[in-house]
Amino acid sequence: MSHQSSMTNYINALIQGLIDGGVRQAVISPGSRSTPVSILLHQCPEVTTYIDVDERSAGFFALGLSKVYQEPVALVCTSGTAAANYLPAISEANQSNLPLVVLTADRPHELRDSGAPQTMNQLNLYGAQVKQFVELALAEDSKEMYQYAYTQGVKSTTLSQVLPMGPVHLNIPLREPLLPDNLLPRPIVKQVNTFIGKTELSSEITNSLSDEWSNKKGVFVVGPSFNQEAINLLIDVSEKLGWPILADPLANIRTFGRKSETISPYYDTYLRYMKKEITPDVIVRFGKSPVSKPLNQWLSSLTGAYYLVESQTEWLDSSKMMTTLIASDEVSLLSQLLSKELLATEDNWLKLFKTLDKLVLETMTKQDETFLSEVMITQVVYQTMTENDQLFVSNSMPIRDLDTYLPVMDTRFSIYGNRGVNGIDGVTSTALGLAARNKEMNTRLLIGDLACFHDTTGLAMAKKYQLPVTIILVNNDGGGIFSMLSQKELPKDLFDDLFATSTGVTFEHVAHMYDIEYVSIHSVSQLHEVLSKKSTKPRFIEVFTNREENADMRRQFQEQVKKAIERDFLC
Amino acid sequence: MSHQSSMTNYINALIQGLIDGGVRQAVISPGSRSTPVSILLHQCPEVTTYIDVDERSAGFFALGLSKVYQEPVALVCTSGTAAANYLPAISEANQSNLPLVVLTADRPHELRDSGAPQTMNQLNLYGAQVKQFVELALAEDSKEMYQYAYTQGVKSTTLSQVLPMGPVHLNIPLREPLLPDNLLPRPIVKQVNTFIGKTELSSEITNSLSDEWSNKKGVFVVGPSFNQEAINLLIDVSEKLGWPILADPLANIRTFGRKSETISPYYDTYLRYMKKEITPDVIVRFGKSPVSKPLNQWLSSLTGAYYLVESQTEWLDSSKMMTTLIASDEVSLLSQLLSKELLATEDNWLKLFKTLDKLVLETMTKQDETFLSEVMITQVVYQTMTENDQLFVSNSMPIRDLDTYLPVMDTRFSIYGNRGVNGIDGVTSTALGLAARNKEMNTRLLIGDLACFHDTTGLAMAKKYQLPVTIILVNNDGGGIFSMLSQKELPKDLFDDLFATSTGVTFEHVAHMYDIEYVSIHSVSQLHEVLSKKSTKPRFIEVFTNREENADMRRQFQEQVKKAIERDFLC
Repeated sequence: MSHQSSMTNYINALIQGLIDGGVRQAVISPGSRSTPVSILLHQCPEVTTYIDVDERSAGFFALGLSKVYQEPVALVCTSGTAAANYLPAISEANQSNLPLVVLTADRPHELRDSGAPQTMNQLNLYGAQVKQFVELALAEDSKEMYQYAYTQGVKSTTLSQVLPMGPVHLNIPLREPLLPDNLLPRPIVKQVNTFIGKTELSSEITNSLSDEWSNKKGVFVVGPSFNQEAINLLIDVSEKLGWPILADPLANIRTFGRKSETISPYYDTYLRYMKKEITPDVIVRFGKSPVSKPLNQWLSSLTGAYYLVESQTEWLDSSKMMTTLIASDEVSLLSQLLSKELLATEDNWLKLFKTLDKLVLETMTKQDETFLSEVMITQVVYQTMTENDQLFVSNSMPIRDLDTYLPVMDTRFSIYGNRGVNGIDGVTSTALGLAARNKEMNTRLLIGDLACFHDTTGLAMAKKYQLPVTIILVNNDGGGIFSMLSQKELPKDLFDDLFATSTGVTFEHVAHMYDIEYVSIHSVSQLHEVLSKKSTKPRFIEVFTNREENADMRRQFQEQVKKAIERDFLC
Repeated sequence: MSHQSSMTNYINALIQGLIDGGVRQAVISPGSRSTPVSILLHQCPEVTTYIDVDERSAGFFALGLSKVYQEPVALVCTSGTAAANYLPAISEANQSNLPLVVLTADRPHELRDSGAPQTMNQLNLYGAQVKQFVELALAEDSKEMYQYAYTQGVKSTTLSQVLPMGPVHLNIPLREPLLPDNLLPRPIVKQVNTFIGKTELSSEITNSLSDEWSNKKGVFVVGPSFNQEAINLLIDVSEKLGWPILADPLANIRTFGRKSETISPYYDTYLRYMKKEITPDVIVRFGKSPVSKPLNQWLSSLTGAYYLVESQTEWLDSSKMMTTLIASDEVSLLSQLLSKELLATEDNWLKLFKTLDKLVLETMTKQDETFLSEVMITQVVYQTMTENDQLFVSNSMPIRDLDTYLPVMDTRFSIYGNRGVNGIDGVTSTALGLAARNKEMNTRLLIGDLACFHDTTGLAMAKKYQLPVTIILVNNDGGGIFSMLSQKELPKDLFDDLFATSTGVTFEHVAHMYDIEYVSIHSVSQLHEVLSKKSTKPRFIEVFTNREENADMRRQFQEQVKKAIERDFLC
């Protein structure tokens, strides 16, 4: 058999494995060495492929697809630095437990370490950032080796979805000539089905938990990446126990569309001034670490029984106060609890949180609603979301403002962020991956100028696939978060040089660069109006703000809440 | 002593080590965790610092500085994906033996693997792509630990320069509060001097080499990254032996300003048709692997004695035909040879190469010099270079066209490229690193649209530091090289989707985005005129070309040379 046929069969067997493992989306970057993988995958009827020129953006685009589909997504690139560009997205996928199947083409063994072009050591290239690394054998014409390639494909794809989920890496050495025979059918291999189980507790344990939690003053704290299918169950449990739920915006509970009295949205503000005064007997945390610093500081100060529920079992307890680790699927745990007798705590407990929420809300509504501040932009963004929309929130200030202000909404919509490693790289590309899910859906990205600048090349995908993303760019000419941190005390020149780091980039030109509709916003009402219109195409909405002014406004708001709390509670 | 003071002393001791090891340039990306390193390094009078928001670009900018200064350059970033963005530039530095000292800030040990924000496993983050990884201890207030930090700094920086040179990585765990006391003087440590030796051969060996090479038909093949101080010596030796020098453009021999008869520039063309007809007894190769595929194919077909001279001793012999590895400094080897009796081979040997060069040149001069083709752009670029200018050539087609056409020049100027892993990422940033060396110098970048697109964010440094780089952007709307490879045989839609991958980006907007002067070129004479004017600011010169048309023109030129060679030599 010719080299072309055996290589084609071998790669097709691998692809059959990826498909049987669950791959339905792939992001391919152009290159020569990866030719057989790209062509054969691109031609699969089962797989939707996207082509992204910049591998760094491609990695994050795949991450977005994986987030929104909750499925393994394949990444394909050529050899050399192309593969190195995936490391940021792979690191984020590893920390946020998303299944990526990374396929890097490589020179065959005889061309390695010999000065052959575009060749570097790709073995274990991503080190500890992937769950598994496989160096594939060279293609061979034998039934056994086709089966081997198939097995590597299906096994790696499955492993990426086994808990804890995460990225896997297959390095594929390929010999020239690289063009496959794209008319060959896939070779026949012995196919494998996979059923992936979840972690479940015994009835004895959940009995004991329902006893331990009954008649106690407890709180539920829910961080990012909470299992969406468990939200209703958690609210049911919280209502039975009379416990408040302090839910991060990325837990998607505040925007689940169920206005339960137990959801307390303004903890990020009141917990700044009410730490010792709120002392639960029991704390139960779900999801990843919450964004809110006051919440995390409060958790670290508590001495009650602290249960951490993790389906991925990662022991993410930065508070060091955890007393019990519960390695369990959330749906399973909460369903079991609902079948037990859960006894509520005294009414006053939940009332305390409701009073505090009311107090914060009153201070919020006193703010000037006509001034186009960063928090007002955030508010208009969530107020104008409609049913089933998607919102991606960038790191640094956008997620923090959203955490502070987001109320419990009537409208149900989804909020996403990159909270694995919290980078400001690849944000736009991740949001575009979400938008690719469904062109009828309204997808928004709330982002600052530094993060938007960092992933300028990512916008090529918005243009190429006309992805209907609305980018709300809050341009305060640099890194706004540093005005909220201790670095602000530095001499101005040092602060501006090293931290504020204005890029001076004009984003109107960025929009034009990609033929994307652009609007500059000058009033709250204009922002309302523009966001109330849906768009089926990508568009850029830029709002210019002042870093220092906004930092001051946030401080003033906190000061007002502090006074109100001192007046009503701490006197 | 306060945490602030001991952290400041500890980091200052580390920085003293970097300086004593030879660091004079640093590229810093903004971030919070890296605050003490950034501030203290930024304030060092001995070190020039550059601030680059995008860490991927920052890595390549540092690579450019390291290339042009031949010195270790420090990179500083915060924790998380920021650090992951360095991998492409580190991979290139590793393959091209450039000393980078990578300093990544990290959370302290107690916050790792706990869900603390922006935290991932940074130990051995760059795996095999760095020469050395050091996890620094946490700062402590003790003379011993200051000495330890100093030693790690000076040792790592020194190791990056010991042969084979390459990048090193120091991971620095830092506890809050992060603001250093920038008034503290550096602590007193025991300082170390380092003298780094070179690899030298014994006189017996060089005696034997001069015997082996005398009276033989030999060729010198010189690849990229050749030691510039050895050029004159190599030309002297070649003239004594009567051997041709086949020198890659990146060996900087064709542009050394010494028009020796031994330098044969057009091998990339004539070796396509004259392989078996040119059979040297001795081949001596210096530098990294040459770009020219015909040259490499010819080397693989030869059966003569094949000497590979490597100062970095990497055994880069993709031809598999090497018979002798010479691990030696080039200057030392060539100086020793010049002191021996070197006997020239017969005159006809060099004459053969000169006749072939003449034949190729005649065909070149027959081409239409008014048509704005990609090769004509390349020609105008080198024809208008002036003494001591710098030219950075992108990978893919620009370096190949330059290799084919570049004659032996009267003018001396330097040519650089990223030929370690040959990526099309980070090209602009590397060129900007060169331009930062000297603002009086004329620095040019010859680049295609895909590579230019890939590093769009890199241009922020051109704006910020007003680096006088002239970017000659050859825009053929996609990956031109694939029209020269076997992929061109694919059906048009598949070819366009997966390989040509037009981004459709308008670079005029990219230029405006950064306030960079922009000119679009429509004729050869206009290009001549624009390039003949020097610029002290960054500028963008865009030339639109047609991919297919240019691929055809290259093929036609080769066809004409082939006919001429068949007529004169192979009949």
